[in-house]
Parts: sequence; C-alpha cells; structure tokens
Amino acid sequence: MRVTLDHARDLDRQDPLADFKQHFALPEGVLYLDGNSLGAQPRAARDAVAATMDQWRDELIKGWNQGWFDAPERLGNRLAPLLGAGEGEVVVTDNITLNLFKLLGYLVGRRSDGRRAVLSEGGNFPTDGYIAQGFCRFGGYTHRVLPEGDDLAAHLDGVAVVVLSEVNYRTGRRRDMAATTRLVHAHGAEVIWDLAHSAGALPVALNDSGARYAVGCTYKYLNGGPGAPGFLYVRRDCQEEGWQPLSGWHGHAAPFAFDADYAPAADITRFRTGTHSALAYSALEASLDLWAEVDMPTLRAKSLALTELFRDCLADVLATHGIEDITPALEERGSQVSLIDAAHGYAIVQALIARGVIGDYREPGLLRFGFTPLYLSHEDVWHAARHFREVLEAGEYRDPRFSVRAAVT
Amino acid sequence: MRVTLDHARDLDRQDPLADFKQHFALPEGVLYLDGNSLGAQPRAARDAVAATMDQWRDELIKGWNQGWFDAPERLGNRLAPLLGAGEGEVVVTDNITLNLFKLLGYLVGRRSDGRRAVLSEGGNFPTDGYIAQGFCRFGGYTHRVLPEGDDLAAHLDGVAVVVLSEVNYRTGRRRDMAATTRLVHAHGAEVIWDLAHSAGALPVALNDSGARYAVGCTYKYLNGGPGAPGFLYVRRDCQEEGWQPLSGWHGHAAPFAFDADYAPAADITRFRTGTHSALAYSALEASLDLWAEVDMPTLRAKSLALTELFRDCLADVLATHGIEDITPALEERGSQVSLIDAAHGYAIVQALIARGVIGDYREPGLLRFGFTPLYLSHEDVWHAARHFREVLEAGEYRDPRFSVRAAVT
Repeated sequence: MRVTLDHARDLDRQDPLADFKQHFALPEGVLYLDGNSLGAQPRAARDAVAATMDQWRDELIKGWNQGWFDAPERLGNRLAPLLGAGEGEVVVTDNITLNLFKLLGYLVGRRSDGRRAVLSEGGNFPTDGYIAQGFCRFGGYTHRVLPEGDDLAAHLDGVAVVVLSEVNYRTGRRRDMAATTRLVHAHGAEVIWDLAHSAGALPVALNDSGARYAVGCTYKYLNGGPGAPGFLYVRRDCQEEGWQPLSGWHGHAAPFAFDADYAPAADITRFRTGTHSALAYSALEASLDLWAEVDMPTLRAKSLALTELFRDCLADVLATHGIEDITPALEERGSQVSLIDAAHGYAIVQALIARGVIGDYREPGLLRFGFTPLYLSHEDVWHAARHFREVLEAGEYRDPRFSVRAAVT
Repeated sequence: MRVTLDHARDLDRQDPLADFKQHFALPEGVLYLDGNSLGAQPRAARDAVAATMDQWRDELIKGWNQGWFDAPERLGNRLAPLLGAGEGEVVVTDNITLNLFKLLGYLVGRRSDGRRAVLSEGGNFPTDGYIAQGFCRFGGYTHRVLPEGDDLAAHLDGVAVVVLSEVNYRTGRRRDMAATTRLVHAHGAEVIWDLAHSAGALPVALNDSGARYAVGCTYKYLNGGPGAPGFLYVRRDCQEEGWQPLSGWHGHAAPFAFDADYAPAADITRFRTGTHSALAYSALEASLDLWAEVDMPTLRAKSLALTELFRDCLADVLATHGIEDITPALEERGSQVSLIDAAHGYAIVQALIARGVIGDYREPGLLRFGFTPLYLSHEDVWHAARHFREVLEAGEYRDPRFSVRAAVT
C-alpha cells in the first residue's frame, strides 16, 4: 500500500488520544469500524452496571432517591458540553423517535400563524420521516419531504418545522448547522436537528450555531450501550411554558404531589415521560465519565486523519474495482467513509466481517465505515484497509457464502 | 399478637411457593413490603445482565441479531400467560405513559361516529390522567374525569375510550374486568386496562374477560428491575391495519428495508417505536424465567393469605390508634394492604423503615404495603406486623426524625 505500516505506527506515537483505547473492552481479532451503529464498551461500564445491580438488590426502592430519578437531567448536563450546550438544556430520555414527536408537538401545536407543514429529509434515517408522518397524520398536519440534494430554501414556504440531520447516516455528509439554522429561521420556520451521527463524532456547536432544538442517541459514537437512552435539547430561552404531547408524570412540575392535573415542569424536565431503566443510564454514565476527559477539537482532528488514512490506503484499489468513494470533503465530513458498490457491496462487507473487519452495509449499495477516535488506532485502520485490499484483490467477495443477503441491523 | 409466630411458621411449612424465595437476592435485615413499587432482584438477573454486557463487548453490533432485536415480542409472548393473553398479543416496549398514548391514538383517531371524549379515572395513578390530558389537548379531543367512586355507566355518553386500572394503586381495590368491559362495550366505548398493580400480583384474565386493550409495567410485582420496560396488549382480532401515532422504525413492517414511507407492521410489532435498551430487557427476561414456574391461582391464594395475616396481626392495635384499614374485601383486593392515618402516616412509615420494614406512604395519609408471594414468607409478614405494633405501642412515630416529609418515590 502507498501508506506503510511504519507510518501508521508513527502517527499512533504522536496521537494525543492514544491512551483512551485501553479504557475500552474490545474483542480480540476484531477491527471495529461500526461504532456509528453501536459503540464499543467502556471497561468502566461493566462495574457501573454491576453497581446498579447491587443498588437494586440492596437499596431496593431507595435507589430512586439515590441517583436514579434525576439521571435524565444529570446525564443531560454531562452530555451538554459535547454538544455545545449549557446546563439545563439537555435531558437524556426515551429515544429519537419519541423525542422528535415531543418536539414536533411542542413546536407545531402552538403555532398561530397557520403554518401546518412538517418537512423531513429524503435520504435521512427513516425513523425521522416515519415519526413526522405519524405526527402529521394524527395531528392533522401536512407532511412534506425535501428531496435529497434539493435546495432547502425552495421548500420552506408554509413549513412550521423541518427535521434535519447534521450528519447524514448514509453519506456522512455534514450540513452547516449555523448557516442552515439561519436560513430556516429567516423563512419563519423552526428546525429540529438530529445529532445521531454527530454526538461524540465531532464537536457539535448547538448554542453557537443558533440551534434551538435537537435530538440524538447515545449508543453510537457516545458508547452508551445497546439501546442506551436518547437525548433532547431545547435552548434555554426556548423553554417557555408549554406542553409537549407525551405528558407523563416524570415531566410534571411536581411528580410526587400526585396532582390530578398535568402541569409541565418549568424546565427541560418537561420532556421526560415515564419511568426509565436505571441499568441503561448507568452504562451511559460510565461512558460519559470518559468523555469528560476528551478534547473535542483533538477528537475531530484524529477522526479526519483516520478517515483520510483509510481512503489513502485504498484509493488505487477502489478505482481499479469500480467502487465509488462518496465520502464528503473534509469540512463536510462526519466521522465515516462511505463507498458505493451496488453489485458486490453486500458481499464485500460480509467478506470483511469474516476477516474480523466490522463495517456495515445499507441498501442500496452502500458500504459504511465508522471511525471512532477513542478506540481506533492508526495501525488498526491500516490493517482494516489491508484486509479490504486483500478481499478485493483475491476476489473473496465472489465466495458464494457472502452473497446471500440477510437482515442487517 | 393474636397470631403466634409458630402459626406463621406452620403456614410457611405448608406453602407450595416457599421455594421461590431462595431465587431472590434480598438484603439482610429487610422486610420488604414495597414490591408494588419496585420488585426485588431475582438472583438470575445478575448473571443475565452480565451476559448481555459480555455480548455487547464481544459481539458488538451482532448482538442485535442474537436476541436483542426481537426481545419485545419474545418477552411479550413469555409474559402473555401471566395476563391470560395469547401468543402475539403482548409486546414489551417503552413505558405505560407512552403505551397509553399509542392506544389512545390507535382507538380514538379512527372513530367515525363523532365520539371525541377520553375518560380517565379520578384517584387513579396520575400518569394515566396526564397522558389522557396531553393526548386530548394535542389531538383536539375532550378529556373527562370519572370521579372516584362514581358509577361508570353514568359517564360513558359520547366517550370513545376509557382508561381504567384493574387494581387501584392507592386502595388496592380491584375492578371486575369482565363486567366492566361488558358495560363499556355496551355503551359503545372501548376500555384500555392499566395492569400496573395486577400483572404478577394476581391472575389476570385478559382474553376471558373480553378485554381488547391493556398496558402495564414490569418493574413492580414482575420484578423486572428498576424502570424495566412496559408492555402493551391488543387482542388478536383487534390488530386490524391501522397506525398508532408514535410511528417509529421498529414498528415498521420492514424496518431494515429503509423505505421512505411508514407502513405499520401487520401485528403487535406496530406498537414498537425506536431502539430499546438490551440491558433492561435481559434483567426482565431472567425474571420471566422464574415466572414460567409459577401457578397463578396458587400465587393468588398466598397473596390473600399474607394480606389477611398482616391485618389479623394488627387489627386491635390499628383500632386503638385510630388507623383506618381501607383494604378491600378479599374478592375485590389486589395484593396490598392500605391504611389511612392522615396525622401520623408519614412518620409511621418512616419509623418502620428505620426498623427495616419497607412500605410506602402516599399523600394524603395513605400507608401502603405490598405483598409479593414469591419472596415473602408468612414469618416475614408476622415480623413486619410485630414491628408495626411496636412502633405504635412505643409511640416511635413521635420521634421528630420521622416527621419531616421528603420526596417519596
């Protein structure tokens, strides 16, 4: 390969984040480029979950007064710095689908200017469009779709709220959050940002970009564990009095007064619904302990270096095999490399998995590789690229074992 | 006391469920009468959660194809026999608040007869009323409240759906599910049953009672762990095509096809939303392993015996101290004993907790004690009653340490 293993090792020696890798429990023989689907396990998560099991066993109901009940706000405040948000602006709760519904109801329900359309993005992760459809169908609003690649400004007439991903899950393309937010506001609409592929992948600048509303998950780049809870951001000055439609007791102003009538909490707590899993929160909290030590600009620099290294190692062989590299330019890139091979993409990913290189495949034709700077070294990336090259050069993807498509999570 | 310790021990020797207690990890020195808030920990839950942590560490994203993704349906099917439901009629997902919203949307949204009112119960657990209010406020429906103790039939005119608890969380009073369901249907309305204080507390007869819709939680009598996921029941012949409003990708007919448009799954899966915590499900599954061995009529008999034993031990001293026993008659009883002492209730519960007897207190004036036949012996109940008697006779509740009211979860 054009890049030598020695060079990759040199880069590791200069890597200020190199020490983080030892804090993750990674299986032997695996080169994991799928942290954009499910992050690896922080070693501390195991003890944290065991401690919560002890707490359940020994403290029983008292556990709710010993950190479980206020975990949504506490973890929200710990997450906020990674998102460019402040204290009291983030709550960890439910999942992206549900959090989008809450914000749609919070925003669309109270508009008095007759705007009744919700715009979602074509080509975005499907659940964002699905919940916008459910919301509109149920609430009597109009759902519209922004065709992928179209000019957003041309689609904002009459739109109350648009749901956009900062980083697209397929292409890894990053929108300019500040410019886009300004554009949407100038058209009299609100934007809810989906940060699923931004949070923990790069420095997110919610406050500085003028963003008012966002949702995201914690099980991808944030390494919170399988199905770890989602989060929801509302800028401080947008937390006016108002209901969100999923009005459960944990979002009540006084949940233990057992009042007959719902009264939303004055702050971000209003976006909680009902009882949450203490176990799920404890794994995430262990991961956030680690994140507290991470300098985000340094993370970003390493993320881009890793994606470039992978591409540099493979550029010639991808071209030879007719595989298209659709990875965006540096300034528009998330933390992934995206390739297109409609004919052999699935089989290539399967052949790589058989070699312990875990990426993922999404119909139609997309090979997707996530780069997680906390637990991937440059040497890991070099070896992953070497395997990829060998799969292509040896034609391993032609092995019939790898051509049968099954459900891919 | 009128009942001797020897008698309680005799009852334990005859108890067909006595062996279950060894399968729970209970702290030393605690007599736990709060399993109606948070159930105790099955010993197997610890290993199950550790195994899921191993799976996350070693299998990473593959875990979703190894039991995590279909846990909502698998656990639903394991739960169904405890609820008198069949295969494919129960899904374990989200929480009661969210599941009520889904069913309200599923039922009210498609009515074509002009009925636009949702009736919830006064005196029920608040979140049921709160979410009915949010649903109606957002969807443009009318929310009405059935005053506690009022005749249901007098309040059903124009009602589309009524939300009722089978067992009231305060009084422990059980409604006749079959008769009430017939009554509601005869008035042209639907009923959603909340089984929070029924599931695992007594044999629930969803199918036999004619019930079509229900929700519940698994962290109380079912011992699924703190904040374990909720469940939702829809009778097989009521699973027509139709949307529920919280239309996320896990409820899609083909979640991994990444279609642009939402299409609800044909079955109970439609009531799933987004990604769920694999850890939370694994603790619950360990508990359901244990429940598979339980004969529900035997559980019911022991539940009633335990509540009667507690009341018999205390009848004279409660009367002396002016504490009202509002526990319903046997046939109308859940699995709890409910007492009223507005003046000293809180302090009495605190004094009991200081002695290791865990019950709970709910404003105004309610002392609530849950009886869980799987891990409580008759001797445990006898000792709990002895402590109660000593607290009253020694006036321990007058200790100023116990009179300051704090948040009680």
